[in-house]
Amino acid sequence: MSGNVEADSKFRRATPITSKINTPTMAAQKEYKVGILGATGTVGQRFIVLLQNHPYMKIHTLGASSRSAGKTYKEATRWTQAIQMPAFVKEMQIYECKSEHFKECDVVFSGLDHDVAGPIEIDMLKANIPVFSNAKNYRRDETCPLIVPTVNTSHFDLIPHQRSLHGLDKGFLVTNANCSTTGIVVPLKALQDAFGELAQINIVTMQAISGAGYPGVPSLDIIDNLVPFIGGEEDKIEWETNKILGGLSADNKSFDYLKNTKVAAQCNRVAVIDGHTECVQVTFAQRPAPSVEEVKRVLREYTCEAQSLNCPSAPKHAIHVFEENDRPQPRLDRDVDGGYAVAVGRVREDKVFDIKFVALSHNTVIGAAGSGILNAEVAIAKGLF
Amino acid sequence: MSGNVEADSKFRRATPITSKINTPTMAAQKEYKVGILGATGTVGQRFIVLLQNHPYMKIHTLGASSRSAGKTYKEATRWTQAIQMPAFVKEMQIYECKSEHFKECDVVFSGLDHDVAGPIEIDMLKANIPVFSNAKNYRRDETCPLIVPTVNTSHFDLIPHQRSLHGLDKGFLVTNANCSTTGIVVPLKALQDAFGELAQINIVTMQAISGAGYPGVPSLDIIDNLVPFIGGEEDKIEWETNKILGGLSADNKSFDYLKNTKVAAQCNRVAVIDGHTECVQVTFAQRPAPSVEEVKRVLREYTCEAQSLNCPSAPKHAIHVFEENDRPQPRLDRDVDGGYAVAVGRVREDKVFDIKFVALSHNTVIGAAGSGILNAEVAIAKGLF
Amino acid sequence: MSGNVEADSKFRRATPITSKINTPTMAAQKEYKVGILGATGTVGQRFIVLLQNHPYMKIHTLGASSRSAGKTYKEATRWTQAIQMPAFVKEMQIYECKSEHFKECDVVFSGLDHDVAGPIEIDMLKANIPVFSNAKNYRRDETCPLIVPTVNTSHFDLIPHQRSLHGLDKGFLVTNANCSTTGIVVPLKALQDAFGELAQINIVTMQAISGAGYPGVPSLDIIDNLVPFIGGEEDKIEWETNKILGGLSADNKSFDYLKNTKVAAQCNRVAVIDGHTECVQVTFAQRPAPSVEEVKRVLREYTCEAQSLNCPSAPKHAIHVFEENDRPQPRLDRDVDGGYAVAVGRVREDKVFDIKFVALSHNTVIGAAGSGILNAEVAIAKGLF
Amino acid sequence: MSGNVEADSKFRRATPITSKINTPTMAAQKEYKVGILGATGTVGQRFIVLLQNHPYMKIHTLGASSRSAGKTYKEATRWTQAIQMPAFVKEMQIYECKSEHFKECDVVFSGLDHDVAGPIEIDMLKANIPVFSNAKNYRRDETCPLIVPTVNTSHFDLIPHQRSLHGLDKGFLVTNANCSTTGIVVPLKALQDAFGELAQINIVTMQAISGAGYPGVPSLDIIDNLVPFIGGEEDKIEWETNKILGGLSADNKSFDYLKNTKVAAQCNRVAVIDGHTECVQVTFAQRPAPSVEEVKRVLREYTCEAQSLNCPSAPKHAIHVFEENDRPQPRLDRDVDGGYAVAVGRVREDKVFDIKFVALSHNTVIGAAGSGILNAEVAIAKGLF
Ligand SMILES: NC(=O)c1ccc[n+]([C@@H]2O[C@H](COP(=O)([O-])OP(=O)(O)OC[C@H]3O[C@@H](n4cnc5c(N)ncnc54)[C@H](OP(=O)(O)O)[C@@H]3O)[C@@H](O)[C@H]2O)c1
Ligand SMILES: NC(=O)c1ccc[n+]([C@@H]2O[C@H](COP(=O)([O-])OP(=O)(O)OC[C@H]3O[C@@H](n4cnc5c(N)ncnc54)[C@H](OP(=O)(O)O)[C@@H]3O)[C@@H](O)[C@H]2O)c1
Repeated sequence: MSGNVEADSKFRRATPITSKINTPTMAAQKEYKVGILGATGTVGQRFIVLLQNHPYMKIHTLGASSRSAGKTYKEATRWTQAIQMPAFVKEMQIYECKSEHFKECDVVFSGLDHDVAGPIEIDMLKANIPVFSNAKNYRRDETCPLIVPTVNTSHFDLIPHQRSLHGLDKGFLVTNANCSTTGIVVPLKALQDAFGELAQINIVTMQAISGAGYPGVPSLDIIDNLVPFIGGEEDKIEWETNKILGGLSADNKSFDYLKNTKVAAQCNRVAVIDGHTECVQVTFAQRPAPSVEEVKRVLREYTCEAQSLNCPSAPKHAIHVFEENDRPQPRLDRDVDGGYAVAVGRVREDKVFDIKFVALSHNTVIGAAGSGILNAEVAIAKGLF
Repeated sequence: MSGNVEADSKFRRATPITSKINTPTMAAQKEYKVGILGATGTVGQRFIVLLQNHPYMKIHTLGASSRSAGKTYKEATRWTQAIQMPAFVKEMQIYECKSEHFKECDVVFSGLDHDVAGPIEIDMLKANIPVFSNAKNYRRDETCPLIVPTVNTSHFDLIPHQRSLHGLDKGFLVTNANCSTTGIVVPLKALQDAFGELAQINIVTMQAISGAGYPGVPSLDIIDNLVPFIGGEEDKIEWETNKILGGLSADNKSFDYLKNTKVAAQCNRVAVIDGHTECVQVTFAQRPAPSVEEVKRVLREYTCEAQSLNCPSAPKHAIHVFEENDRPQPRLDRDVDGGYAVAVGRVREDKVFDIKFVALSHNTVIGAAGSGILNAEVAIAKGLF
Repeated sequence: MSGNVEADSKFRRATPITSKINTPTMAAQKEYKVGILGATGTVGQRFIVLLQNHPYMKIHTLGASSRSAGKTYKEATRWTQAIQMPAFVKEMQIYECKSEHFKECDVVFSGLDHDVAGPIEIDMLKANIPVFSNAKNYRRDETCPLIVPTVNTSHFDLIPHQRSLHGLDKGFLVTNANCSTTGIVVPLKALQDAFGELAQINIVTMQAISGAGYPGVPSLDIIDNLVPFIGGEEDKIEWETNKILGGLSADNKSFDYLKNTKVAAQCNRVAVIDGHTECVQVTFAQRPAPSVEEVKRVLREYTCEAQSLNCPSAPKHAIHVFEENDRPQPRLDRDVDGGYAVAVGRVREDKVFDIKFVALSHNTVIGAAGSGILNAEVAIAKGLF
Repeated sequence: MSGNVEADSKFRRATPITSKINTPTMAAQKEYKVGILGATGTVGQRFIVLLQNHPYMKIHTLGASSRSAGKTYKEATRWTQAIQMPAFVKEMQIYECKSEHFKECDVVFSGLDHDVAGPIEIDMLKANIPVFSNAKNYRRDETCPLIVPTVNTSHFDLIPHQRSLHGLDKGFLVTNANCSTTGIVVPLKALQDAFGELAQINIVTMQAISGAGYPGVPSLDIIDNLVPFIGGEEDKIEWETNKILGGLSADNKSFDYLKNTKVAAQCNRVAVIDGHTECVQVTFAQRPAPSVEEVKRVLREYTCEAQSLNCPSAPKHAIHVFEENDRPQPRLDRDVDGGYAVAVGRVREDKVFDIKFVALSHNTVIGAAGSGILNAEVAIAKGLF
């Protein structure tokens, strides 16, 4: 029988055979041991899928609840990814989420439920471990950066201040944004950079069921149906946007929230597996407002620090602009650039706002686990750990 | 075996056994012979379902394309309703949509595709037959009322003018609105009546697949997916709203379109069978804006002419206001009041507009066939034919 | 405003206006007070929908868990029916499922989870109350009839024996079958009655999500997916069929299970809200086997005791036979005869068995709550209580 | 900005970075120019996705109807794949499907509709081009092999005879099987090889919508629904199985169809995008029948010629055997081994047959385009062209 046939499968997969990895930055020469908190959950599983072949991060320790601790990963997990569970992880043991089990880790990613994430993440931080969290617990903390990796990696500059508050030399805590916030701040950042202050932002989301975890949304609620409500979500978008699109104070010790930008959000759950679609309307402060063509050009040409730092997970284009009338669509476009990009389409004038467009982002890649990973890559490239 | 067991099924169906029909208006004592154009289509089938037990309208003639003409209804139709095809219609013959076949009809309902509706509907009109159309062809005609039966039945006052233009004594042509327009103008009319001019209206729709007819939306486009585009639909909402919510000139010979109301719409197709859900935001001209409680009260108490005229298909409440956070939902609430009402929920303040809410309406009942039927009932009650 | 407009909605609903109720049997002159156990669940909700306009059964007491007890029905229930919650039930109080609260009830329907149903149902029985259970706990009990109301109501003859065992004069306990068993035993009974012993029965099911209750099947498991496994279900079909299609001993004190009929079942969950579709293959003992036309005729002409007893919920036809190639389909045909009938189509010859066909039944009407109700109607008509 | 970031995306994708291609057989050193007939269709698109990075086959000419001819691929195609359209194909011109345009091609793959495939494929054959067809037209031809590449590549031995009939030295015509047949013959071949003749095979399919092409299945037919009928499909399974699992005559000039194996099939369409799931029951001729454990072992250890020939698209395992109760599931398991393997689960004893199991296969990879490609790889490895 043939040697390594599975390897060949890559040519079936949108990827050139003679591909090359970006020459990693110096920092990346080292191998980083990774811990995953909440490794059995939806976000945790996505961490494993995304990290399985990472050039310099290696999964080292898996954590979950005491219900799972002591079991192998295979026993403890109801795997719901469309990619088979990687072989190397099947027999790994699950540990309780206590820092004593994660001492050897260079970095910890958290996919914990918010009702348990708080103390666990602080315990890891205090153990001097860099923590990248998906939970909402510290997003509004005045000393914790809320970073979307293709938007505001400049907020890492607050880390020295955070460390000094906790008396740490290595550990720190960074959160990424809510998945529905993530999808819109990428194009909004591009617009703000190019055209200045945004006066009004209006969002209506149509969000995927995977955003609610597993078991999450009951099928009786969503087949031949939609639910025009997601608890707390509208407030998250309205609040987080102002932190992410804002800056830091001159001394890098506090956040300058946007003050003049009004943000309104309405959130809906629809029968889509992965990929949040959002109808976005924007009014600029600048008069006259930029034209549709200028807006499209700015979105198309937007680049971010994660790209210039040559991070291996950085998307080729942080924003993909579609010209077809009926795109982006979640099933067709959520995987653009491996799920690390945002797809934007239908950029056009509006009768109430200046312009409107449709934004689509993969809620468990750039909207969750991928954000954590790319944030970590940026932090490593910046020499933070 | 038992006598008439099927009759019993009514007690399984939300309806009191000892129900009574509203005492019909005098006009309704007569029996009206009904013709249906496009009887084999999605909207045509719904006409048949809705009319099968009507107290004074009886289906008399069925029309469709020349492909179907000559066949029995059963042979020609791919029935897609969840209610079995009524027995009486199965063996009825299909005719071509020419006025010579509809001479005996007192009224004609059209569920024709817009690419054929134009000349056929004019042919019926010229044959002196009252025509109620679902097609878009004459919605923007300056001599044709565009009537949502729970909103602007006052526009029937233009009919004498229309008749005089065509030299007719009995025939006339009325259209109902696009299904996505219909769902929002009902609550907006209530707000406009109570609080005066609306300054800004913003709509994002999530529309059912039945709105595209049959075969309509390919399943590959909508399972695990949504399509953020419906050709022409956004423009229809933006335009029709201003005609429907406007008035008539003093001489009842022309339409007073809204001039100061900005309407912006974004339309999406989602994996729902029936029922369009719409996220609506409103800013009032009046300052200060009414409170959420005032808005809810006005919506709850709204009544329309179709109700005061005691029309048999009129909903008990034209608007049903839900207090639950996560309602209305299409699968659960589209059939409220038999599909003739609009369900409204999540009325709340907005950060950019004054208020926002979710509106849900049944796109083939109040959004199509039901509108035609209730419009006809109103016209009869008003003595128009 | 109009008087009783809602009443009119019945003419929109497949039901003749001038319908009449079957003259009820003598027993039915009385009004029966009904208790519902597990009233807040999916099956419990369906009991309420089906009983709300019943000619002689009136909902009297609602029972649920101690979590719900003390609350109003509206507070305690996450209503998931497509028909609005009936007004009369909203403010009814929920009680714990103890017989002391159900003393006034003439009959109790149980929609309890099997992990709690056992002792509660026995408690009701011992309190001398007739109990109709949907739970699986006593289906295999040697003293408990397992009755599908359009199939084996003759098994009520065992009730005197059951009562004598418990020293009761009024109370008894009857279960209905698993929803997937129910759908197939109706046509199989017709075939067995007409053609004698069935040698082999092969079943592959495609079952609706409502069969798993609420929250039930996670949407991540079933959108763009199916699950080829339902725990315990295959064994239930294989076992229950032999009890239901069997007879009673001569002294009406025990069950004569089928012994020579081999039954094999495979069960799948699919993305359908209501309605189990089953591919059925049959080999008869009789040689030569009956022809397809004979089989269809027998299915079409099958009648059952519930019909001859003139029970108000009895279907007009226990089996509806479709001639169209692509029917029955769950969305279109599950409501045939109010959900109390089984729809059968594609009757044709098979290459391995004698014949095959597709059977569709509404899993929460004839497959659950409706079975309980129709069983009770039969028991009343037979003078059992 | 970074150099070739997209390349990196491969480490996000289940594939080791340092993968190697199987050392191709000698024949494969050459580069093969590929023509695709019906390139704009669902199967045609899949050919493009699967071939875009093929080690030795290069897409050279694209053919479609005269409606598309002359346009670029991008203009002519409604792309419905979840992977973005490969850049290299966008500006390629489409040609009519006439052999004069395909003269330079070393091989032609056909994804044509059966109503046009017949004469076009013969035209290509007569032009001395090897043709691999997905259409049904020649599957039952007595001179045309019907080959599933992981099952009966021995049937290529009939090609010399076919060529001599047409007086060709290079061209030949091979078809692959219907997608629902493909999924079952792989495990059945393994069983037949190990345990001898199969006496009875019973199949019930639950087939994906992509099997009907685009626009294909209307969404109104399949949301909250299933269709228990696919025209012609049951007969295809029953017939094709006997050709594929049969052998060749001693002179390699005709097919030895299975004669003693009874095959019965029932086909259903369900709301799944890709992946046909099939419930399979088997009775062996051999007594006693093999045990469940023997059957599982045989399935697990099955290998085929495509593997030993080291074909680049050959799956690592032609059959993946799952031990979990509720697997395989289409959304989770259809991509096993890139869609070239068949997933089998729930192997267990049956009450009517000897054993039963669930088989899942990707209907547009191994069930269509992938079969053609792997067949061509085998033919090349065998030196046929
Ligand atoms: N899904 C998304 O798209 C998305 C996007 C952005 C952010 N988020 C956020 O990411 C987090 C995880 O979401 P999810 O969808 O992955 O949820 P999930 O599927 O419910 O997973 C929860 C994880 O937390 C673990 N856990 C629960 N209780 C624990 C305890 N007491 N101690 C330690 N571990 C415990 C679980 O382990 P066991 O298996 O042992 O119970 C499991 O691994 C949430 O904060 C969510 O808001 C999600
Ligand atoms: N579906 C909705 O929710 C909705 C809501 C509001 C308004 N509308 C409007 O209602 C109309 C019908 O929509 P639909 O969804 O019912 O479409 P549909 O299902 O495609 O039905 C079209 C009907 O038109 C007939 N027809 C086609 N060509 C004809 C010809 N040359 N002469 C006479 N009859 C012809 C067809 O008859 P054959 O069977 O013989 O081809 C069929 O009865 C459209 O104008 C649509 O925009 C629809």
